[in-house]
Amino acid sequence: MARADSEAAEGLFRAFKDGFRWEGVPHMPYKEEGSAPFKAISRQVLFEDPDQACQLRYFEMDAGGYSTLERHEHVHAVMILRGNGHCLLGNEVRPVRQFDLITIPAWTLHQFRATGGEPMGFLCMVNNDRDKPQLPDSAEVERLRQDPTVAAFLDGMPARA
Amino acid sequence: MARADSEAAEGLFRAFKDGFRWEGVPHMPYKEEGSAPFKAISRQVLFEDPDQACQLRYFEMDAGGYSTLERHEHVHAVMILRGNGHCLLGNEVRPVRQFDLITIPAWTLHQFRATGGEPMGFLCMVNNDRDKPQLPDSAEVERLRQDPTVAAFLDGMPARA
Repeated sequence: MARADSEAAEGLFRAFKDGFRWEGVPHMPYKEEGSAPFKAISRQVLFEDPDQACQLRYFEMDAGGYSTLERHEHVHAVMILRGNGHCLLGNEVRPVRQFDLITIPAWTLHQFRATGGEPMGFLCMVNNDRDKPQLPDSAEVERLRQDPTVAAFLDGMPARA
Repeated sequence: MARADSEAAEGLFRAFKDGFRWEGVPHMPYKEEGSAPFKAISRQVLFEDPDQACQLRYFEMDAGGYSTLERHEHVHAVMILRGNGHCLLGNEVRPVRQFDLITIPAWTLHQFRATGGEPMGFLCMVNNDRDKPQLPDSAEVERLRQDPTVAAFLDGMPARA
């Protein structure tokens, strides 16, 4: 890369900015409608390149926000990047904090909740080529709720670790 | 996942530990020999799964350490996770700090240096299926050194930003 290519290098170096935003990365809040199964969450796609088989995204929830309770065939590789909260995986509820790693296997229901009174954000690596998420039906959610720990999580009040 | 599967969930939640280590993730220091083209660097593979087409690795250099100056066809998607330092990309030298993003395109020489007087660590996403890195020959390094900024970087004394 010649010195004259400095300008071309601009897009290759993208600075971190206040508030967990990045230079040149669009911030995409999810639009909440009547029955939206998520709350106060946004997405930023940090890396997306036809020469790479995966994307790296950053999702962030405001305090009290949560991601959609869903499952899919594709695997999620997650690292908490900001704050702390709780994660439901199958029917296991765990506290999670900055830099913890979470593997979400195929077809496993999962949800993240920013229960720490502050925003919680996480990196999520996924295959470019992936299936669409599926939502649990109400009977399944009822079965999940039979576990008091899971019910408390779904109500936004997980037990203290 | 039934309550009885709590144990199975253990490997899915891997806690961050002091010193930028992770539960269940082997820490692999690179062995330095006579002509090793790197210094004081270690690798931890955070995510590696046959069901994902990419890996996510964490590399860390001690203060003053550096990665190998190399190029390859595969793309690197990098996020600085710890500390700050400098990055050479082509013949562009840039200061980098926590959570900055760096895209390393195909066949572009690159090197990271922990110039901040503290360890610097970064995440690096790569395709599972990738080519081996190639080193520049001495003539090419000489050409790079004709740029005083690059020469200072290679000597471990990059100019202040």
